[in-house]
Amino acid sequence: LATPTDGGAAALPTYDDVVRAADRIEGHAVRTPLLESSLLNRAVGGRLLVKAENLQKTGSFKFRGAYNNIAALSEGVRAGGVVAYSSGNHAQAVAAAAALFGVPALIVMPKDAPAPKLANTRAYGAETVLYDRYSESREEIAQEIAAERRATIVPPYDHPMTIAGQGTIGLEIAAQCAADGIVPDAVLVCCGGGGLVAGIALALERPFPKVPIYAVEPEGFDDTARSLETGVRQTNAPEARSICDALLSPSPGELTFEINRRRLTGALRVSDDQALEAMAAAFAHLRIVAEPGGAVAIAAVLSGTFPLDGRTVVAVCSGGNVEPGLFSQALERL
Amino acid sequence: LATPTDGGAAALPTYDDVVRAADRIEGHAVRTPLLESSLLNRAVGGRLLVKAENLQKTGSFKFRGAYNNIAALSEGVRAGGVVAYSSGNHAQAVAAAAALFGVPALIVMPKDAPAPKLANTRAYGAETVLYDRYSESREEIAQEIAAERRATIVPPYDHPMTIAGQGTIGLEIAAQCAADGIVPDAVLVCCGGGGLVAGIALALERPFPKVPIYAVEPEGFDDTARSLETGVRQTNAPEARSICDALLSPSPGELTFEINRRRLTGALRVSDDQALEAMAAAFAHLRIVAEPGGAVAIAAVLSGTFPLDGRTVVAVCSGGNVEPGLFSQALERL
Repeated sequence: LATPTDGGAAALPTYDDVVRAADRIEGHAVRTPLLESSLLNRAVGGRLLVKAENLQKTGSFKFRGAYNNIAALSEGVRAGGVVAYSSGNHAQAVAAAAALFGVPALIVMPKDAPAPKLANTRAYGAETVLYDRYSESREEIAQEIAAERRATIVPPYDHPMTIAGQGTIGLEIAAQCAADGIVPDAVLVCCGGGGLVAGIALALERPFPKVPIYAVEPEGFDDTARSLETGVRQTNAPEARSICDALLSPSPGELTFEINRRRLTGALRVSDDQALEAMAAAFAHLRIVAEPGGAVAIAAVLSGTFPLDGRTVVAVCSGGNVEPGLFSQALERL
Repeated sequence: LATPTDGGAAALPTYDDVVRAADRIEGHAVRTPLLESSLLNRAVGGRLLVKAENLQKTGSFKFRGAYNNIAALSEGVRAGGVVAYSSGNHAQAVAAAAALFGVPALIVMPKDAPAPKLANTRAYGAETVLYDRYSESREEIAQEIAAERRATIVPPYDHPMTIAGQGTIGLEIAAQCAADGIVPDAVLVCCGGGGLVAGIALALERPFPKVPIYAVEPEGFDDTARSLETGVRQTNAPEARSICDALLSPSPGELTFEINRRRLTGALRVSDDQALEAMAAAFAHLRIVAEPGGAVAIAAVLSGTFPLDGRTVVAVCSGGNVEPGLFSQALERL
């Protein structure tokens, strides 16, 4: 592990950490397909390859980081159980991964988390504690509970093992592209706290060192875009709202931003409306269920925010945990 | 190719034809994942592995048979173009496969085919001719046009190369199960004309000779069930209706029934309502879009028609081309 240049306490994960994570999750996580539709390609004027992480266990990429994180704990520490805070996808991921290791999990979740995410987290066997997303600090609540119970916190993005776990998606993208003789012209990845795009950026460092990588954020939650522009971690306005519930982190993580500011070419913004359009297109052309936050990278291409102009682009679809009513609303656009 | 025992003119495909088909489609068709949800497993009391052929090119398994069929034609014959008749999935598959070979395709489709299936068939570049599903013979219309144009008919199910192409799904199921150390207790496959289940039955003959294989049909379209029971090919009542538009063939094929009567353990019936429930469950737990006909094998398990009792079962989800309104209707059950 390298030491971050800003003197931060935690060490930055490396490409090798991603490779080790891939070994840990092998046989436990789904190797998700890279999907494509010739009709969609024609519509966007290029080649759009969608990494379908909505087909991952628990319905999002978060399972990779959670599993890697818990697997990397010593047996004694792991036995004390885990605590996490999450809007829903990391919650389900930690709950399911903890269940696989047979250790208790407690998840601090926002009161307004989508109902299926809450229900599934409990169904995987985790205890849940609810908090107010806009007035309380989930980190503080989780730290208090973890200290009381002598349990370990599994951070949703700003942890080397979480980032390395998410990065395994990048290794798969590289292998899947190589198998088809493809070198993508860009890789687009949705971004909340930045763990997914940071992990993928690490993983692509060796196979695709020159391929531009972009973060994609919902309008109003463009903290990574503004942080990249200014070189300093920025925070979102507390009054900002978006249907992309999976991407509503207040600011980039320390570790994730340290990686992203070095590796990312830039960040793109899409509207909620464009995310809904992308969900509808993913339904019709790829026959997958994308949640709003999961669809923003596809949305960046479909909306013309990132014009293809004949290029080949990989867009990561990060998750598919969405309320049926909202999904039906997206389908009304077809 | 073996000769059918009933003295029929066409030869029955064999396991080796399926292996040859796998070679032909390699790199052209998607190797679809075998998906699983621990929450769904708990709900059904066993292990349900879903072969997600809705993620196949053109949104259904039909691409495999169509591509294999067209690839197996001599270049001279292929250059004359292809004609097909189909309720929609085979239509899109033949249109897309023909486009890959750069040859013209004309598809005879029912007037009441789902709008996206019609639109996509045309978008893949095929010419379409509409007919009335309940009063006209699509086979006669197609044969007339093919004779006029000196084009080749690509039959939707009753052809050795079509059956062999669909059978490649069985080879993948066997390899995917083997990789996870699984021997399934049963394999459930939706059934219209019977090409998909016949092909899979051929493919599983060697890796899983003792695993029971069941056809699953919509109520009112249980021609294969009644044919297996009586030993003679039966026909569905002309007044029968179902939302499972992909499975509305009037009777089993000659070749498909010859294979299915030897290899299948039985056939199961599910209602339209049970198919809608299965579509909703596939949305919520697997994050995939299943069309009604594509969901009947999952429906057989979810409805208790085929109780798991702790067993491990593979259900093939054959396609995901469904009108948004009908999909939203299914989601209202959640």
